[in-house]
Order: sequence, then structure tokens, then C-alpha cells
Amino acid sequence: MIKSGGDIFFLLMGAAMVLAMHAGFAFLEVGSVRKKNQVNALMKIISDFSISTVAYFLIGYYIAYKTSFLKPVSALEEIGTIELVRFFFLLTFAAAIPAIISGGIAERARFLPQLIASALVVALVYPLFEGIAWGKTLPIVQETLESSFGAKFHDFAGSVVVHVMGGWLALTAVMLLGVRRGRYSKDGQLIAIPPSNIPFLALGSWILTVGWFGFNVMSAQSLEGVTGLVAVNSLMAMAGGVLAALVVGRNDPGFVHNGALAGLVAICAGSDVVHPLGALVIGAVAGALFIVAFNLCQNKWKIDDVLGVWPLHGLAGAWGGIACGIFGQTGLWGKGGVSFMSQIIGTVMGISIALIGGFLVYGILRAVMGIRLSEEEEHEGADLSIHKISAYPEEDMRP
Amino acid sequence: MIKSGGDIFFLLMGAAMVLAMHAGFAFLEVGSVRKKNQVNALMKIISDFSISTVAYFLIGYYIAYKTSFLKPVSALEEIGTIELVRFFFLLTFAAAIPAIISGGIAERARFLPQLIASALVVALVYPLFEGIAWGKTLPIVQETLESSFGAKFHDFAGSVVVHVMGGWLALTAVMLLGVRRGRYSKDGQLIAIPPSNIPFLALGSWILTVGWFGFNVMSAQSLEGVTGLVAVNSLMAMAGGVLAALVVGRNDPGFVHNGALAGLVAICAGSDVVHPLGALVIGAVAGALFIVAFNLCQNKWKIDDVLGVWPLHGLAGAWGGIACGIFGQTGLWGKGGVSFMSQIIGTVMGISIALIGGFLVYGILRAVMGIRLSEEEEHEGADLSIHKISAYPEEDMRP
Amino acid sequence: MIKSGGDIFFLLMGAAMVLAMHAGFAFLEVGSVRKKNQVNALMKIISDFSISTVAYFLIGYYIAYKTSFLKPVSALEEIGTIELVRFFFLLTFAAAIPAIISGGIAERARFLPQLIASALVVALVYPLFEGIAWGKTLPIVQETLESSFGAKFHDFAGSVVVHVMGGWLALTAVMLLGVRRGRYSKDGQLIAIPPSNIPFLALGSWILTVGWFGFNVMSAQSLEGVTGLVAVNSLMAMAGGVLAALVVGRNDPGFVHNGALAGLVAICAGSDVVHPLGALVIGAVAGALFIVAFNLCQNKWKIDDVLGVWPLHGLAGAWGGIACGIFGQTGLWGKGGVSFMSQIIGTVMGISIALIGGFLVYGILRAVMGIRLSEEEEHEGADLSIHKISAYPEEDMRP
Repeated sequence: MIKSGGDIFFLLMGAAMVLAMHAGFAFLEVGSVRKKNQVNALMKIISDFSISTVAYFLIGYYIAYKTSFLKPVSALEEIGTIELVRFFFLLTFAAAIPAIISGGIAERARFLPQLIASALVVALVYPLFEGIAWGKTLPIVQETLESSFGAKFHDFAGSVVVHVMGGWLALTAVMLLGVRRGRYSKDGQLIAIPPSNIPFLALGSWILTVGWFGFNVMSAQSLEGVTGLVAVNSLMAMAGGVLAALVVGRNDPGFVHNGALAGLVAICAGSDVVHPLGALVIGAVAGALFIVAFNLCQNKWKIDDVLGVWPLHGLAGAWGGIACGIFGQTGLWGKGGVSFMSQIIGTVMGISIALIGGFLVYGILRAVMGIRLSEEEEHEGADLSIHKISAYPEEDMRP
Repeated sequence: MIKSGGDIFFLLMGAAMVLAMHAGFAFLEVGSVRKKNQVNALMKIISDFSISTVAYFLIGYYIAYKTSFLKPVSALEEIGTIELVRFFFLLTFAAAIPAIISGGIAERARFLPQLIASALVVALVYPLFEGIAWGKTLPIVQETLESSFGAKFHDFAGSVVVHVMGGWLALTAVMLLGVRRGRYSKDGQLIAIPPSNIPFLALGSWILTVGWFGFNVMSAQSLEGVTGLVAVNSLMAMAGGVLAALVVGRNDPGFVHNGALAGLVAICAGSDVVHPLGALVIGAVAGALFIVAFNLCQNKWKIDDVLGVWPLHGLAGAWGGIACGIFGQTGLWGKGGVSFMSQIIGTVMGISIALIGGFLVYGILRAVMGIRLSEEEEHEGADLSIHKISAYPEEDMRP
Repeated sequence: MIKSGGDIFFLLMGAAMVLAMHAGFAFLEVGSVRKKNQVNALMKIISDFSISTVAYFLIGYYIAYKTSFLKPVSALEEIGTIELVRFFFLLTFAAAIPAIISGGIAERARFLPQLIASALVVALVYPLFEGIAWGKTLPIVQETLESSFGAKFHDFAGSVVVHVMGGWLALTAVMLLGVRRGRYSKDGQLIAIPPSNIPFLALGSWILTVGWFGFNVMSAQSLEGVTGLVAVNSLMAMAGGVLAALVVGRNDPGFVHNGALAGLVAICAGSDVVHPLGALVIGAVAGALFIVAFNLCQNKWKIDDVLGVWPLHGLAGAWGGIACGIFGQTGLWGKGGVSFMSQIIGTVMGISIALIGGFLVYGILRAVMGIRLSEEEEHEGADLSIHKISAYPEEDMRP
């Protein structure tokens, strides 16, 4: 009983911490977009989270873990109510997918289609890969990897399951949406669109960072499985991400506060197997990778991913999935038991499912109902055009 | 020893989470009022919390639970120091009463009388009903309900004990204060007073939402009693509140972020007995109820409850108290063991004590010292007139 | 195993809560400085935290506790991974030192020298005294105190180890930096430099306050040692600090929100031995002391300690170290087992090491590379001159 109570408490705290991360996603976006789109950022996060809760409760969780909650409370108590907290914990992960996407598609996406996309992704696309990596969907995949390469695909806390999925899904949405009006001049030069509020951006980053320790440590899912290694590796990867971003990003606050997150994205997969010094390196590479790729997106590739969620989650996540197969080896002071090949294959599989799922969901929605604001609405800003209110109504009503 | 340590840890985390909710109350109000009253919002919350701590430590907790801490540490250790953490946990609930009231009386209440009212309410009014519902005051009430209707009045985490009390107490204060100057035109039309800062409002809502999982789950008060059902029901009610507010409130960010709170208010009472789908419905009804009642207050009834704390806590709380008696039944997949009649009676009793206590406390204070700012002070704003500083001093000092 | 898991979980939550406090330090400073230095505040906190992590992992923790993590994961698991979480928990304390200093030196310090100072302080200065008070450095000190005065120097959660160290180190840095340009008129009168943002200041204070319960309670470092007394004493000291600041500080929001912190600083040392009423008094004295000393610094002594970190941490911390030796006595309902003389000596030792270490580190850095912005840079603000971006770029780019 105490054991069960302890595990429930443990998972509950993890769930609460990852729930808080959604406020972090919201403020990271509020600070990064222009004032005229701040309300929309807040609304997307809380609404997408809520619709995701329902979609994952009714469908998604069943797809990944073959457990349904559609029975009376007495029957649920027989299963053990810890299953319910596990659902809550994993829902906060699942709902991170639309929260990640939200930052990429900011400032020009319609509201209702995105709400529908969130429901579809969390009900169908995400749980498919989640079930393969962590759950009960297509067990043959993990079995084959294990028999072929000596170890299953290892993704302790979701560098690939959550962040690669979110980042690459966002990429499809960003590409199907197209760039913001006024992002590039007629001759293709980047036109600066400055963020509105660095303190809010930093607040979002801090909330995400703190919550991340629930995301990573509580991924053990029981008090028996908890290890201090996961906590310290997360810490070291965060520090590595910040310090690399400080150097590569030349003291820029946006890069540095995102650098912490890049490090944390990358350490999820291997946080239970690499050495803290390995984690420091993994985080530092992720922080640098994020900045380089962010700049390439904006300047060269003309991918208008507003918050850089594809570099941040998609690329740093893929790096994390692979790095787990490198720094997890005993030769590099790691714990061992991971396979480089399985990590590569698992990561590529995650990318593939995200790309296919994303082009399907956003492609169909674009064809059926349109996913983009009109030129006028985009110019006016999502706040006034969708929500009929600005972020600072008192100020804007002044003569 | 480990059991005791575990329970202390469990309750402590709950207390810390509900303590954090007070920052949430503060920012919800900061964002909802005009700039000239933001400092006052912050000051009321932290000051009322502090005076409540002293009042509840010396008087309130003793009234409800017949335990006094006025003895040396050695004697306290004999009782077991978990009693101290229980005090801390329950203090964070008690102090929510003035925090709820604060949002209703914003923009025109004097500071010192409200501080005194907070002390009186937390020392005397709140613990009376708290003791009846949860503690050792008038045990005959619960015994009579049980013998008459087969079950005691059930309020797991305080839809009635905390939110009905806070909301209806606020209603008395709001009515005794009167409407803000300039709220209605001479022919009785509502004049819009726009909120100052939607991001701060949303920040407050998020802090409250996350903290609420401590409010609800830790109400089990021991690791043995903890159940995953409470956590998931809170989650579902929050989602229901958001989604209903999204539809009924037409994408308005204030309504949607308060909708989450309305759902959470309503689920407190029955979160340990209803099914998650029941919780979804309870939350959705609460979210819709809040908006409808808020609009009626402002437009029809001319109750100038600035943040809508009476609809949010008073009405959604009453709905929660009653809904527990409906959705808790086994016929609706609930756990059973609750009585519809006991819920009605308990809820009405909570409302009555709040109304009587509120009219007494605020009525006497109004007669003795006055509770309202002068016309000039109200016009200037509570920040400059009471605290001699604005929320953004650097800006306001610019030429 | 469950015991170990429980302790890891317990310490991890403490670490996460104190990690969050760093966001609190950041926003307390963001709100207290002028707009042109807000980004710099955010950047110092996250960068200093990250460099501190590396410095304490490689050097500092070894100095204080003689444990090194420079061995493969398999060897770390033999020690027990709880040692890693203990490192994480104590790192969040160590990194508080530069975060405290940051508030004192705001608005005119160069960035890189401060980053180097942070690394040096956390690697060398802080762990020296930490090891004497809590760890394995110079055990003869505590042994001598015990044999001479009947009890060791007692500092449960770091009034002296953390706050005195941070506050007096900050004092040296502040004095070596000199006052901000324009702080005093030619005839030596104080010129008001108003804070930019009271809501951010209050947000910082709230984050710090909530996190403080991890700082204090988890200082027990195991579930067996946890006691409810620590939690309630922290609460009472916070309330005392607020209420005293309310009176002495005449309703000023900056004083009141710092008053809570002053109370919490002072209670760290004796939170496990004093009675809650003693804690209330300790907190109240700290709150009043902070305001009086802050005003003296600014008006009389011309110490330009921007956030008042020397009064807040240095003086309230010293008061806390000594107060533990007074209110901890059984005659004042305390638990006993503390010595007034040992508390005096320990506190003075902390001050001395901080002063010597501070003048060395900042003195050498000043001689070697300079620690202060140029007149032009200071006038322009640290944000634009160091980070090439303002806190609100969209706004500032408007014509």
C-alpha cells in the first residue's frame, strides 16, 4: 500500500511538473512572437492541451498501451488507480506534441484547424510510435532490433518519442503553411521580425527547464526504478546547452535560454545510461546545433519556423537519440546495454512516422478547410482577428 | 519512521503547491485589473496570506481541529510533527479565502480593513464550517446527515469548504462595497473596463491550475489514502472547463483561462468518487456556468465582482458540491457512498455560514472604519493612493 | 530499495524547487533594475548557474565532501546514485551564491569577469566554508566548537553557509565596483533610480518563497530526518518578515516582497530547533532589519547594492545564524542542543571567509581584466552594450 502510494505520489509529481511545462511552452511563445499574437499563443497552448486530454483518454492511450478507462470506478480500482496517474503523466507528454508544433506555426495559423490537428495527432499519430517504442504497439519492432543488434531502441524519456515527433510534425505544418507575410523581401532577403518580450521568453524557458526534471526523472515511473543519474545528467546537459549557446550565440538571450532546452531535449533518450560528462557534451552539441540550424532555416532554407522548434526539438532530439548509442557505451564511461544501430533505426523511424503523419494530417486539413489566416487577419494579428482582444486591452483602448 | 517521513513529504509538497497558488491568485488579479491597481493586487495577496498564517496558527486551526501549537517544541514532537505540516497544508486552504475575496473587491477597497477582515474570516468564520465538514466542530451535524441520508456531507478537497465559502463571502463584500465608479453609465449601461494584461492573467491561471493538483491530490493527507482517480478527475474537469469556455466564451482568453479554474473548483468535492467522464461533464458545466453567471452579474444584476469570483468559486463550487451527489452514484460509474440530500444540505449550509459571516465581518468593518477608498483615491488608483508607487515606476517617472 | 528511491525522490524534489529559485532570483532582479538592464539580469542568472554547475561538479563538491564523480557510471552506481542527487541538491545552493551577488552588482558589471568570478567562488571559496560547516573540510573546527561550547555550529539550511556567504561576497564586489553613475548628485544626495517592473519583482519573490520550502525542508536530506517543524517555521518566518516589512516599510511592495525573503533567509539556520512563535519573531526582526539597513546603505553609507542583497542575505543571514543560538534554547520553547557562542563564532567565520574570498576574487579580476562597464556602456545599458538586444525588441524597433 505504501509502495503503491509512493509510486502514485512519485508519478503525480512528475505529471504536475510536466503539466507546468505547458505554461512554459506558452510563455516561450508569448515572448518570441509579436505583441499582436501573444493572446493566440496562450490560447493555443491551453486549448490544445485540453483537447489532447480528451483525445488521449479516449483513444491515444489505448492505442499505445491497450488499456481503456471506459468502465466504472470500481473496475478502475481493480486495475489499480496508479494506471490513471500513469495516463496523466503520459498525457502531459502527448500534449507536448501540439505545444511544440504551436511555436513553429505561430503568427499565421488558423485556430480551429490547429485544434483539430492536435486531436488527430494525439489520438492517432503520436501513440503509434509511442506504442512501438514504449508500449504495446507492434512489439515485433523492438524484438527485431534486440535480436539483430543486441539491444532495443532506447529512449528513456523521449528525445525521439516526444521531441523528434513534435519537431518533425511541426516541420510539415510549417512547410504546408508557408512563410509569414513580410518575412522575406522581394529579393529574398530576411526581414527581421523581433520578439516582443525577452523576460516572458526567459520565464517560459525556466518553467520548461524546471519541469523537465519531472519529465526525465519520473520517466522511471516507479520509486524502485528511480536513479540519481538521470537527474544529474539532465542538469549537466542543460548547463552544456547554455554554455555552448553562450559562445556560439554570442551572448544572445534567446539563444541562451533556448540552449538550455536544446540540451534537455538531447539528454532525454540516454539520461539513464550516459556519464554526467557525456551529458555535458551531448548538451553542448545540442545547444550549438540548435543555433546553427536555426540560422540556416531562417537565412538559407527559408523555413519560417518561428520559435525554431524543428531545430530545437526535431534536430536536437534526433541527436539525442543517436548520442545515447554513442555515449551510453561503457568505453565512454556509460552504462552500456545500448546499440548504436538500434538508436539510428529508432530515430529514423520516429522521423518517418512524424513526416508521414504530419503531411497527412496537415495536408488533409489544408485541403478540406484551410489552415492559414487570410492576409488581412495575419496583418491585424491573430489576437484581434481570432480572439477579438489584444494582449494589453487597457493600453490599446487608450486614445 | 519512513511512513511518517513519507506522509510529511507528501503533505509538504501539497502545501508548497497550494502556497504557489497564492502567486496564481495574485497574477490572475494583476492581469485582470487596470494598471493603476496592480501593485495593490500583489500587496493584498501576500499581506492577507501572512496575517492569515498568524490568525490560523493561533485561533483558526484550534477551532476546526482542537489542536493547539502553543507548547514547547519537545511537546510538539510528542504529538508528531506531521500535525504541523497538516496545519501548513490546511493554512494554504484557509488563506485562499481572502485571496478569493481579493479578486471580487478589487480596484476600490481600502487596504487595512481588508487585512483585518482576512484575519477575522480565517480565525473565526472559515474554521467554523471547516470544522463541521472536515474537523471536530459540532460533530452532530455530520452524524445527523449520515443517520438521515446514509452518508455524510462529502467534500473531498473543498468545493464547498473553500470555494463556496470564499465565493459567497466575496459576494457580501462586493455588495457592501458597491460598484466601481464609472462602471455603469447614468442610464445604467455597462461601461467596459478592460483588463490590463492577458499574459499575467494567463500566468495566474496556469499557476493556479498546476497548484490545484496539490490542492486535490494531497487532500488525501496520507500516502495510504492517495488515489490516482483524484488526479485524473482534476485533469478531466480542467479540460472540460476549458473546452466549454472555448465554445460558450467564443475564444475569449479571459473566459478560457478562468474556465480551467471553474472546472477545477467544481471537481474538488467529488474528485475521489466520480468517474473521469463524470469529471469531464462536471468541469464543462462549471465552465459554461461561470461565463453565463459572469455576464449576468455584469450586465443584468449589476454586481461589480471584478474577477467574477462569486461565479467562479461560489457558483461553480456549489455546483461541485451538488454534482458530487449525482456523478458519485454507482449508476453513473461513480464509486458510490455519497448522498444527494447530504450534498444539498452541506452546500446550503456552507453558503449560509458564508453569507452570515460575511455580512457580519464586512458590515461591522464598514460601520466602524469604512471599507472603501475615497472617490479621489479610487480615481487615482489603489497603487499610488495606498502604496505610493505604481507598478512600473521607471516608466511613470519618465517625462 | 524503496527507502533509497524515496530519499532520491525527496532530494530530487528539493533540488527542483531550489533550481526554480534561480528563476526567482532572475525575476527579482529584472523587476528591480531599469529596463535597459533586464536582459543582462536574465543572462547572468542562467549563465552563472551553468558555469557553477560545471565548477561545482569538477572541483567544489570534492573540496567540501571529498567525493569525486570522475569515474565510470558503473562505479558511480556502486557508491549509490543518491550521491548524485545530493550533488544536484547542493549545487543549487552553491549556485545561489553568484545569483545573490548578481543582484548587488547589477547595472554596471561586465559580463565575462562575473562569469569567471562565479566559477571561482563556487569552485573554491564557497565549498571551503560549506565543508567546514556541513562537510569534511577541516573537521577540527566543528570538533573544537563542540568540545568548547557543548554544541557544534548549527546551520540547518544555510543562513550562514549560503546567505551570509552570498551577501558578504556581494558586498566586496559592490564596493570594488563602485556606485552606479548618476546614483548620487554632486553634493552627495541620493538620486532615485526607480525599479522597472513591480509585478516581475513580486513574481521573483513568490518563486523564491515557494522554492524555499525545498531549500529548508529537504535540507534534512533523507525521509527519515524530515520534520514538519522546519516547514512551519519557514512559513512563520515568512509571515513575520512580511508583516514587519508592511509596518516598517509603509506598504511599499518592494519592501514587503523582500520582507518575505528576509524572514526566510533568517530562519534557515534554526528552522529545525526553534518554536514556530520563535520563527515568527526571527522573521519579523529580519524583515525590519532589512529595510533599516537597506535605507542606511542607500542614503548614509553610499553602498550601491542595487537589490539590497547585503542587507537581505548578509545581515538577515547573520541574524539567523545568531538567532538560532537564542530561540533554539529550551527556555524559549526551542529544541535545545545549540550553543550561542558556537553560533556567533560560526557566523563570524562565515563573514570572514566571504570577505577575504571576495576581495581576493574580485580584487584580482579588477586588476587583471576590469570588472566594470565603461561609462558609455553603462549609460546605454547592459542589454544593448553586452547582449546587443533590448528586453522588448519589438517595441524598441518601432519608429
